[in-house]
Amino acid sequence: MDQTTATQASKPPPTVGDRHVDPHSYPDGIAFLDGQYLPMSQAKVSVLDWGFLHSDATYDTVHVWNGRFFRLDLHLDRFFRGLEKLRMTIPFDRDDVADILHNCVALSGHRAAYVEMLCTRGASPSFSRDPRQAINRFMAFAVPFGSVANAEQLQRGLRVAISDKVRIPPASVDPSIKNYHWLDLVRGLYDAYDRGAETALILDFNGNVAEGPGFNVFRVKDGKLSTPAIGVLPGITRRTVFDLCAEEGLVAVAADVSVAALKAADEVFVTSTAGGIMPVTEIDGAPIADGKVGSVTSRLMALYWQKHDDPVWSSQVSYP
Amino acid sequence: MDQTTATQASKPPPTVGDRHVDPHSYPDGIAFLDGQYLPMSQAKVSVLDWGFLHSDATYDTVHVWNGRFFRLDLHLDRFFRGLEKLRMTIPFDRDDVADILHNCVALSGHRAAYVEMLCTRGASPSFSRDPRQAINRFMAFAVPFGSVANAEQLQRGLRVAISDKVRIPPASVDPSIKNYHWLDLVRGLYDAYDRGAETALILDFNGNVAEGPGFNVFRVKDGKLSTPAIGVLPGITRRTVFDLCAEEGLVAVAADVSVAALKAADEVFVTSTAGGIMPVTEIDGAPIADGKVGSVTSRLMALYWQKHDDPVWSSQVSYP
Repeated sequence: MDQTTATQASKPPPTVGDRHVDPHSYPDGIAFLDGQYLPMSQAKVSVLDWGFLHSDATYDTVHVWNGRFFRLDLHLDRFFRGLEKLRMTIPFDRDDVADILHNCVALSGHRAAYVEMLCTRGASPSFSRDPRQAINRFMAFAVPFGSVANAEQLQRGLRVAISDKVRIPPASVDPSIKNYHWLDLVRGLYDAYDRGAETALILDFNGNVAEGPGFNVFRVKDGKLSTPAIGVLPGITRRTVFDLCAEEGLVAVAADVSVAALKAADEVFVTSTAGGIMPVTEIDGAPIADGKVGSVTSRLMALYWQKHDDPVWSSQVSYP
Repeated sequence: MDQTTATQASKPPPTVGDRHVDPHSYPDGIAFLDGQYLPMSQAKVSVLDWGFLHSDATYDTVHVWNGRFFRLDLHLDRFFRGLEKLRMTIPFDRDDVADILHNCVALSGHRAAYVEMLCTRGASPSFSRDPRQAINRFMAFAVPFGSVANAEQLQRGLRVAISDKVRIPPASVDPSIKNYHWLDLVRGLYDAYDRGAETALILDFNGNVAEGPGFNVFRVKDGKLSTPAIGVLPGITRRTVFDLCAEEGLVAVAADVSVAALKAADEVFVTSTAGGIMPVTEIDGAPIADGKVGSVTSRLMALYWQKHDDPVWSSQVSYP
């Protein structure tokens, strides 16, 4: 007989509560959902939402630095393109979403914030297996700014390991739809920790370097920049590097980057809305060139942060 | 200047509520989280949980039919193997989880239930990017039984379309860890709807048939059964078909199934905890054989449901 029966019969059934008492604590911030602005402790998704049960969702993340959004328009563009590709609709247009994000940040009071807009497929009251019967749900939140690299790592460069995990290919999930499919990246991260590294890069289907958990990667060799072209998120910070290179007269291309080519680089850096441009000085335990943050990386990092005060690239949050 | 600034400055900021007022309705059922048994409306995950933001979670689903769990031990085995592979720990052993599932069902009163146990990576209070700092979270719930195929479809067979979407390959996400990475399947489902079908099958990386949204597929040809071997969830209902075939003296193998071979089958059926063994009688608008539910499928369907009363295969829920 199935062993799970016996113990059960003798115990009285537990009681059912009315409302969840949440023992967890949450970062300080403000969320928007169902027309309400709320503390982060209230920002939750039903376990029956397709966004959770099927990772059927898209999102975008923008940051606020010194009280200013950076390139918000580009993030809104990508978010609305993702919604369309997933056939999701929300009762807000671009200006509405921009207003909501501004409000989340303003109400949070954070001058440096990590700001996310997201939409899940939702759920139907009957828990239908037909996604067309679900009601799409938009949410947004602003929490304190976070970075892939901490202050020390930004100074001396990240120590990275290359995992043999393969980034989910475009034939399965279109990377231009920013998505939460990250188990490949999470497992790559554990591979990296096992090898004493601080973060990971994983591969594309041809064995070339793809990307890491939440970031793109650039190689600098003989003054020229390259970054993987296929199967990677078209990151806004990645794009910003191309824009900065154009301004600076540096050559940057999207092209295959082999593991060997990356390790033989003069400089390596990674890019993310969570941290900007961040140097890498060690891969798989060996230094990149002399193991110091390179001059091209430093120059781009400085320019990147300067642009955060430029009204062409950024917009002021109106705090109450 | 970034257009998103102007409208903002003139409006007063909205107010922040204390507690989310949830306008959505949920199916009738009972969930377990943080040591509490609660109605389904309370079963929620923080948007900051890695289980949501990175689909960093594993789960298993078992059903209850006529007040009895079906093959609960096999589902518990798979769930605990998934936890280990993802390096997650929960403060419950197998017997504890079995007790919790029993309680959810008993308290729900459902005699036919869809029962899920799940664990997310969790989140850290600081929203750290290091998954090792997250506190893993176990949840479970029981809602009314649901089926991939409704009563009419079970009678006449499902109408399926084969999408060109490729199931996320094992080199990216190990399918033996039951996971929520489903955007490939969801988009395949929309492809199928566009073509007038009721559900979808998607492909493996070699262009053979892989699986559908929540189900495995079997081909019957000349009295022999085959089902895709690689890149698919090792489903418990799929395994049950092998067990039933062994009892019945039918030959069943796991092997590549090409699209052409599937369409040329004598019979096709799909298997899922959500519905059991379900006939398919039309693929891409063309009938399978004579377009009627076949004799092998019917025989296995009958046997499958008979086993639900057999104490070797099932265990009684003790309702209060």
